[in-house]
Amino acid sequence: LEEKAHGTRLEVNLDAITHNLNFYRSRLRPETKIMVMVKAFGYGNGGQEIADLLQYHRVDYLGVAYADEGVSLRQQGIRIPIMVMNTSEVDFENILEYDLEPEIYSFDILRDFSEFMENTDKKVKVHLKVDTGMRRLGFASDKGIELARTLKKTPALEVASVFSHLAGADGPEHVAFSARQVRELNGFYDDFCAVYGKRPMRHTLNSAGIVRFPEYQFDMVRLGIGLYGVEANGELQEHLRNVSSLKTVISQIRNIPAGESVGYSRKGRFERDGRIATVAIGYADGFRRVFGNGNARMLVNGRLAPTVGNICMDMCMIDITGIEAEVGDEVTVFGETPTVSRLADDASTIAYEILTDIGQRVKRVFITE
Amino acid sequence: LEEKAHGTRLEVNLDAITHNLNFYRSRLRPETKIMVMVKAFGYGNGGQEIADLLQYHRVDYLGVAYADEGVSLRQQGIRIPIMVMNTSEVDFENILEYDLEPEIYSFDILRDFSEFMENTDKKVKVHLKVDTGMRRLGFASDKGIELARTLKKTPALEVASVFSHLAGADGPEHVAFSARQVRELNGFYDDFCAVYGKRPMRHTLNSAGIVRFPEYQFDMVRLGIGLYGVEANGELQEHLRNVSSLKTVISQIRNIPAGESVGYSRKGRFERDGRIATVAIGYADGFRRVFGNGNARMLVNGRLAPTVGNICMDMCMIDITGIEAEVGDEVTVFGETPTVSRLADDASTIAYEILTDIGQRVKRVFITE
Ligand SMILES: Cc1ncc(COP(=O)(O)O)c(CN[C@H](C)C(=O)O)c1O
Ligand SMILES: Cc1ncc(COP(=O)(O)O)c(CN[C@H](C)C(=O)O)c1O
Repeated sequence: LEEKAHGTRLEVNLDAITHNLNFYRSRLRPETKIMVMVKAFGYGNGGQEIADLLQYHRVDYLGVAYADEGVSLRQQGIRIPIMVMNTSEVDFENILEYDLEPEIYSFDILRDFSEFMENTDKKVKVHLKVDTGMRRLGFASDKGIELARTLKKTPALEVASVFSHLAGADGPEHVAFSARQVRELNGFYDDFCAVYGKRPMRHTLNSAGIVRFPEYQFDMVRLGIGLYGVEANGELQEHLRNVSSLKTVISQIRNIPAGESVGYSRKGRFERDGRIATVAIGYADGFRRVFGNGNARMLVNGRLAPTVGNICMDMCMIDITGIEAEVGDEVTVFGETPTVSRLADDASTIAYEILTDIGQRVKRVFITE
Repeated sequence: LEEKAHGTRLEVNLDAITHNLNFYRSRLRPETKIMVMVKAFGYGNGGQEIADLLQYHRVDYLGVAYADEGVSLRQQGIRIPIMVMNTSEVDFENILEYDLEPEIYSFDILRDFSEFMENTDKKVKVHLKVDTGMRRLGFASDKGIELARTLKKTPALEVASVFSHLAGADGPEHVAFSARQVRELNGFYDDFCAVYGKRPMRHTLNSAGIVRFPEYQFDMVRLGIGLYGVEANGELQEHLRNVSSLKTVISQIRNIPAGESVGYSRKGRFERDGRIATVAIGYADGFRRVFGNGNARMLVNGRLAPTVGNICMDMCMIDITGIEAEVGDEVTVFGETPTVSRLADDASTIAYEILTDIGQRVKRVFITE
């Protein structure tokens, strides 16, 4: 495998993705379909290669945030259905041309899209989003009948599914709220189907939901973070395999006498004599400034080395006092150790953000065993 | 100008870049050369278009972090000299093939590069980095004589410049330290030149330094953040023009009754009846989670609307109670108002990081007046 010249890379283990997909499959009824969310470049891991793998494994749907993302997948040869979450008027041409399936979340977008379709002789599958408590996108849950009436008069749009999204599937404190969300979805669904006369697919579970609420799996689930190796509830983490490892290399090593400062604004300080390594990753690569000044540790030859001073745009310094290390040695920013979840904790955020933050110039290297 | 389908875009004003370049030029002696740092995709703004503009304006050098970035610039037709900061062995072929000029920062890399050059009949310009207090990359400042001796025996490497980097050019509290850094650079430079027999260029100022220490401009300066519209000292901000504006659109609007929650983990709360807009930007686009729950404001039809609840990967919600707004309306995340520096303050970071964080799927749209 060719590596990015500067040695900073995200290694993505495709076999671990397969393992994780199979884990979630094992928690579902055999007939339940799976949509995998590959938006935001497969949660930062690399959209193209992962979509290819998922198509090979015959997942039923891919989910993207924007039509552009769907267009890229089609252009690379992905043939399985693709749902687009956030559609707007400018996307309609692409939706038709690239055989994408838009989420219809408001009467505004429904009207605009229907009008657009009047000038074509095609049919398009759409997915109706119901807002049951997330308050993000979706129809109010009392609109099932009205929506069914409208859609019966719009034969160009075929409703492939009715769905909602849980606001707190990963929180034990939100179990009752989640149940209420599902009741609202079911109410909408029953209203809708009674008038529409057909029963499209129904779905509402994300990764955390699959684990916590298998009774709500309905016809399909929408798997995201779990595929990428992070169990959102934290409870079944041991069943997943680590997918991505962010690695870099040591560019230079130097001794720092006690009292000297390191890096921008002289923030790094040594109380006694120490030794630092400059590594080839900075905040433009996704190793954020919040990790500076000892707030995160990297793995160097089996030992954890904390950051020293502020993180620079393209580099940072780590404290390797007492650690055997040489220029050119590999350094793990996250992977098996430290985990991406650990890094997320260090930054008071969630693993999703650490992953999607990985810079565009960091080369993705795909590994199979 | 074609816009990204989902309407989320970074508008980059090329005329503002020209204005800012001229401002910094006006603070320098006419003969002082300018290197512009275009690493990390032009600090997130878009590497290619900005490099073209800078070549047109005859800046003397471009600076990148990694050889790969230099290769891309050459492939797009940039002909002016390009310095590469962080070189390692795997880059040597590219350096030669694409006519890049490496920073030589250690005896290790000097030895490896000299050995590599022995098998060619070419000459390469190199830049010697001296560590005078940044403690990142560079030779110790007492190595000038030893280095000159070595380089005299290595005719394939022509020393184009000797340089250092100030750790606290933007901090009034670091003025004495900066002066000490410059004295160390000068000491190294004198030692080096006495033995080397030629006087390469000398440079040490970044944007903040150009403003604070014009007396240290020597033969060249290295302009970064100032070009992109942020005056690192904050004192001369009024002389710069805003370069980039991050914009998105409203996807949906809904009323939220008092007591209801909004978004993931039900973090958004309304004490009284309110109205929210869902906008098409999330943390995968660079609008970080730290901006959630009221920690940042977006401009909607002339009014500032704070975020509500957690930021999602591809969307977020803002409070537009009392603000006139419609679906499709443009929303400014940063630009003239709020400024990128304001957003950086809201996130306890620096404008550099907000800029380099802007996601790869956010389309860059270049504007001239
Ligand atoms: C509609 C929808 N379904 C399913 C998923 C998968 O969630 P998870 O990764 O937790 O399995 C997402 C992801 N949401 C993200 C992360 C967001 O909008 O912030 C989603 O927006
Ligand atoms: C060697 C060098 N010179 C000049 C500059 C320009 O700095 P400024 O943008 O403040 O004008 C930088 C940028 N440094 C960055 C931002 C870093 O390494 O974090 C640099 O690394």
